[in-house]
Amino acid sequence: MSHKKEPVEKRLSETTRLEAFSDGVFAIAITLLVLELIQMLHPQNGDGSLKSFLQHWEPFLAFLIGFLTLLICWINHHHVFNYINKTDSALPWVNGFVLLMITITPFPTAILAQYLDSEGKFALAIFGFNYFMIAIASYWLCAYTYRKHLVDDSSRELFHYIKLTYRYSIVFTGISFFICFISIPIAIVLYLILFGAFAFPKEFAIKLMKLKQKRRKKSPVN
Amino acid sequence: MSHKKEPVEKRLSETTRLEAFSDGVFAIAITLLVLELIQMLHPQNGDGSLKSFLQHWEPFLAFLIGFLTLLICWINHHHVFNYINKTDSALPWVNGFVLLMITITPFPTAILAQYLDSEGKFALAIFGFNYFMIAIASYWLCAYTYRKHLVDDSSRELFHYIKLTYRYSIVFTGISFFICFISIPIAIVLYLILFGAFAFPKEFAIKLMKLKQKRRKKSPVN
Amino acid sequence: MSHKKEPVEKRLSETTRLEAFSDGVFAIAITLLVLELIQMLHPQNGDGSLKSFLQHWEPFLAFLIGFLTLLICWINHHHVFNYINKTDSALPWVNGFVLLMITITPFPTAILAQYLDSEGKFALAIFGFNYFMIAIASYWLCAYTYRKHLVDDSSRELFHYIKLTYRYSIVFTGISFFICFISIPIAIVLYLILFGAFAFPKEFAIKLMKLKQKRRKKSPVN
Amino acid sequence: MSHKKEPVEKRLSETTRLEAFSDGVFAIAITLLVLELIQMLHPQNGDGSLKSFLQHWEPFLAFLIGFLTLLICWINHHHVFNYINKTDSALPWVNGFVLLMITITPFPTAILAQYLDSEGKFALAIFGFNYFMIAIASYWLCAYTYRKHLVDDSSRELFHYIKLTYRYSIVFTGISFFICFISIPIAIVLYLILFGAFAFPKEFAIKLMKLKQKRRKKSPVN
Repeated sequence: MSHKKEPVEKRLSETTRLEAFSDGVFAIAITLLVLELIQMLHPQNGDGSLKSFLQHWEPFLAFLIGFLTLLICWINHHHVFNYINKTDSALPWVNGFVLLMITITPFPTAILAQYLDSEGKFALAIFGFNYFMIAIASYWLCAYTYRKHLVDDSSRELFHYIKLTYRYSIVFTGISFFICFISIPIAIVLYLILFGAFAFPKEFAIKLMKLKQKRRKKSPVN
Repeated sequence: MSHKKEPVEKRLSETTRLEAFSDGVFAIAITLLVLELIQMLHPQNGDGSLKSFLQHWEPFLAFLIGFLTLLICWINHHHVFNYINKTDSALPWVNGFVLLMITITPFPTAILAQYLDSEGKFALAIFGFNYFMIAIASYWLCAYTYRKHLVDDSSRELFHYIKLTYRYSIVFTGISFFICFISIPIAIVLYLILFGAFAFPKEFAIKLMKLKQKRRKKSPVN
Repeated sequence: MSHKKEPVEKRLSETTRLEAFSDGVFAIAITLLVLELIQMLHPQNGDGSLKSFLQHWEPFLAFLIGFLTLLICWINHHHVFNYINKTDSALPWVNGFVLLMITITPFPTAILAQYLDSEGKFALAIFGFNYFMIAIASYWLCAYTYRKHLVDDSSRELFHYIKLTYRYSIVFTGISFFICFISIPIAIVLYLILFGAFAFPKEFAIKLMKLKQKRRKKSPVN
Repeated sequence: MSHKKEPVEKRLSETTRLEAFSDGVFAIAITLLVLELIQMLHPQNGDGSLKSFLQHWEPFLAFLIGFLTLLICWINHHHVFNYINKTDSALPWVNGFVLLMITITPFPTAILAQYLDSEGKFALAIFGFNYFMIAIASYWLCAYTYRKHLVDDSSRELFHYIKLTYRYSIVFTGISFFICFISIPIAIVLYLILFGAFAFPKEFAIKLMKLKQKRRKKSPVN
């Protein structure tokens, strides 16, 4: 049957469209965050003067956190799809799980904006749970494409270590989630470390790879 | 007249732009769903504490249903346009009918979020009517492109069966719509079957094609 | 200076990015229309039951009008840019005027949704003024690209007639605007004629071209 | 290691995706501005008649200012990325700072719409501070790509002068910011000059380059 042998270019272009759709979702989610800032200007908050509105610093902090979160997620999504050059029927679903978590992110951001002063720990924990789910989704995307050989063969070794960084991030965000209920400052430090590591995903994966290779050389038996 | 003989690449690129515009609409519609979740945080709902808001589970369920609906629609739209490689003056209108139903989808989702507990059957029926209209629009898109030979010739046979799956979906969503008024649980089971079938549109069409071909062999007279 | 001689492909790709940005604006404007429908569900409208909300038919009509308007504008924008294959420093500004009118369109749509029953003529006239401005912007886009030879040479003759259709649309929407204040039914008939003509812009321009060529043959002196 | 030698096309396409994501953010931010106009129609403003709403001219002016700001920013961003043909790990972050300022722009626009009549100087100063931050972000983008040789070699000289125009814009918007607190009319004149200069960024940079080259010829010692 002729429909089974799709030309290679077509399959490649399918990945392109998946990326374009994902880019759209990321771009919209990151831009919708400003609506929560605008919301703040409504008459019910403050005495009506501009200064009284701008004294609420929580929405600004929440906006910045939401923006950084989504930017880091986009950079990582973009980085991972750099190596994926084939697609199959299930990839839109695996990627769809990542997009679900991206789409919902403005919601915990809005919670953070409104409840950071009154119910800080709970609000931060909801945001932390979101990170945990994003970590699971990102790891699943890597693990699935690695297992199904949808990844560029020449980058397969590096991709293994990229996958590994997301596996670590599940553990890390899982622990941080529980810390949120105990101490906000410690949780914030943990999330800053997380941000630092995944701000440059390629460098992080390469560093991890070199570390593992060095350790392997030291103990060649293992 | 020279303007009549457009080069082939140009006509192909027209399909690309139609897809890009459609992707934009899908991406925005799917991301706007979160606004209904954020809306929920407004002071009029609950006693003001974060817990009182999160006790409303309906908006979360509605968000998930809306997200899955639009993701499945995107996967199917993407799948169908994989085979369409030409365009004409009317295709943007036929596709526009699909986009109309996609654009409006956040509205029945918002209805579901707000009325699932008080007027569940009616709210679900409105969502079900939306599915029915999406099924009609999708079938029309397939039937039009098939009839006008805008489909890649080598995939023409498979595309016939893809078209057939959408014709069945009209009947299926039509029946499910009436079931909504009678029993919510049965309606939900029916929609889960629908989701299952159209989650992997290519596999569904291939299965249908093989089934029909087998049957034809058994009764060669027919 | 080397920076002055940009390779041709680069200049072509600039048009692509202008189109991509425009597509984004169109896609978002058309999808934002649903927010006005969702707005309708707020407790202040009706007695709180789902039926009481759905009895307001005006927002649905306004949504449909807004959707059709933006879809026709996109089809026409897409059609015009089919022939534009070069760009210059001012084109983003001329195109920006079109985008300004597209971006603002959800506003007269919202006015239509809320004032169609109480102040129908005025609400329709505002929408009509929007059409008038869109017509001016579209004509300017065509006239500018035609004059500056940014249009594909082989399509220059047809493009002249495309330009002509938009010139006529300025007169037509100008008259219709004043009719809005006198009679809603006549204005609606006029706008339906407008929609019919610009639903298939290429066919409209070709018909106009043939009509003019025939007339020229009849009176060869002229 | 094979993953280090990425083919050149791939690195080029990375820039494309960065531009596509940025375009999405620009397109959404510019289209969200209309929501503030629609907001104005809510019953709390005016006596409920359409005329009473339209008498508020401030939201329309703010919409126009916000639209022009974002259009000029897009034109400049597009112009700068015309010359950038490589990417590295940090470029998404430098570009992310530009996008942060673009994403937030609807917020000062909303402030302008609501406070232009009651707290004009303060509202304009907030918008002015936004311009100042956009200028810093734009300069940083140019300076970073110039320093890291991510710019097309044949355009390197011109790019130096493009970079210079943004350095001047930091000083200019910094001064204008303070003027906002003193006199609104003078501030508006200053911003109109700014708009005029950056409406055609390429022409501005070329003019600056010729001016500097002429001056150098006059004083060959320097």
